[in-house]
Amino acid sequence: MKKLEILKIGGKVIDDKEKLTSVLAAFAAINTPKILIHGGGSKASKMEQKLGLIPNMVEGRRITDEYSIEVVIMVYAGLINKNIVAGLQGVGCNALGLSGADGNVILSEKRPVNKIDYGFVGDVTSVNSVFISSLIETRITPVFSAITHDGNGQLLNTNADTMASEIAVAMSGIYEVHLTLAFEKNGVLDAKGEVLAQINEASFNQLKKEGTVSDGMIPKLSNAFDALKNGVQEVKLTSAENLAGRNLPHTKIVI
Amino acid sequence: MKKLEILKIGGKVIDDKEKLTSVLAAFAAINTPKILIHGGGSKASKMEQKLGLIPNMVEGRRITDEYSIEVVIMVYAGLINKNIVAGLQGVGCNALGLSGADGNVILSEKRPVNKIDYGFVGDVTSVNSVFISSLIETRITPVFSAITHDGNGQLLNTNADTMASEIAVAMSGIYEVHLTLAFEKNGVLDAKGEVLAQINEASFNQLKKEGTVSDGMIPKLSNAFDALKNGVQEVKLTSAENLAGRNLPHTKIVI
Repeated sequence: MKKLEILKIGGKVIDDKEKLTSVLAAFAAINTPKILIHGGGSKASKMEQKLGLIPNMVEGRRITDEYSIEVVIMVYAGLINKNIVAGLQGVGCNALGLSGADGNVILSEKRPVNKIDYGFVGDVTSVNSVFISSLIETRITPVFSAITHDGNGQLLNTNADTMASEIAVAMSGIYEVHLTLAFEKNGVLDAKGEVLAQINEASFNQLKKEGTVSDGMIPKLSNAFDALKNGVQEVKLTSAENLAGRNLPHTKIVI
Repeated sequence: MKKLEILKIGGKVIDDKEKLTSVLAAFAAINTPKILIHGGGSKASKMEQKLGLIPNMVEGRRITDEYSIEVVIMVYAGLINKNIVAGLQGVGCNALGLSGADGNVILSEKRPVNKIDYGFVGDVTSVNSVFISSLIETRITPVFSAITHDGNGQLLNTNADTMASEIAVAMSGIYEVHLTLAFEKNGVLDAKGEVLAQINEASFNQLKKEGTVSDGMIPKLSNAFDALKNGVQEVKLTSAENLAGRNLPHTKIVI
């Protein structure tokens, strides 16, 4: 099977124009088929504040009310997505920005209200891997913002790590998928603050219990394990700045 | 040649959720290949005001400074584009939202500073009709926001009527193109407020001189004449609400 690199970048690198430029250049230089997925959390929170709204996060996930969904659509699928696409075009990568609604590529369903009402948050139900593959095969690089739709006209906010994991799993039927979840650290840190070369579910549970791994890292690692258990060849966590030199410290997910 | 319907909708219908829903349903029901182009001016101005910026328009065109370009990217390519795409998906139309940067589909150059500095405003230099056609031929309906790029990473605000005209002209090499510029009136009105069944350049110049046609109507009509003179089969101006019943009053552009 052909190799497919999938890279997810998070909020902090997106906020730093210089870092983002170097990450996009490194990504553009990957000469296998590739997909980029981006978050953008801190920019959305800043925009909410500018508009007089109060960002509301629970365990790294945003409570998305009717005002908040408008902000995340604007910021993720508009401002961030289009600037990344234009930036990639500027370095010779034929990028195409997508939300889940575009080409009906990612369907989700509104999360049922259980203990917490997450509002307009969607859990992915299907990924149109055939459509994504048709883009890739014409040398287009899909760039996903973490917005999906329910098929009935409603856009939904979706965790970008989850989206990356779901896309990686769906594409693993067609390609040998290598998934990199990039964030602000070099990898998963142990209690001493050192990068773990690898992590399995037992050590993940231990780190959670100790509180060494918390907040947004919990769903990130859960998604990473899900991807690996469902057909993805390789999953690693590293810092976005490490993408250019690929031998720098990182954490490999193992099962 | 195969028929291609191109519809441009403007700011006022986008602001009215109910009207927009009925326009999208009528558009989805068109059973020839089709393209939608949308503006969104008043929503962008409202967002600028909410963010403490002052919208600055000259002859219906927005002066787009470094803050304003962020707002138009968010609102046009994000909020409006994705809601339209999701709305079309909800009524069975496989829509795909595009800015000019996506798939490198529309290149523009920053307007040179002459009497007026329009800021980050782009004039279209090329339309990738082959890529648009490849989408259409796989039954995808492209939905364009009026944002283009310069190929070097800069996004630019572009007049939606101009974009519609440029896309129509580019596609007229491949399809028999019918362009409808929809706006808040049933067509071009004469001094008595009645819809003109048709308008040519002589009558356009006369109406301009009288002041019957002014502001945003001037570039709209200029674009309409440009399209017709450059290969587009038919160009008409009508109200967005008239799209469902296609025999209601409208103005046909003639040369």
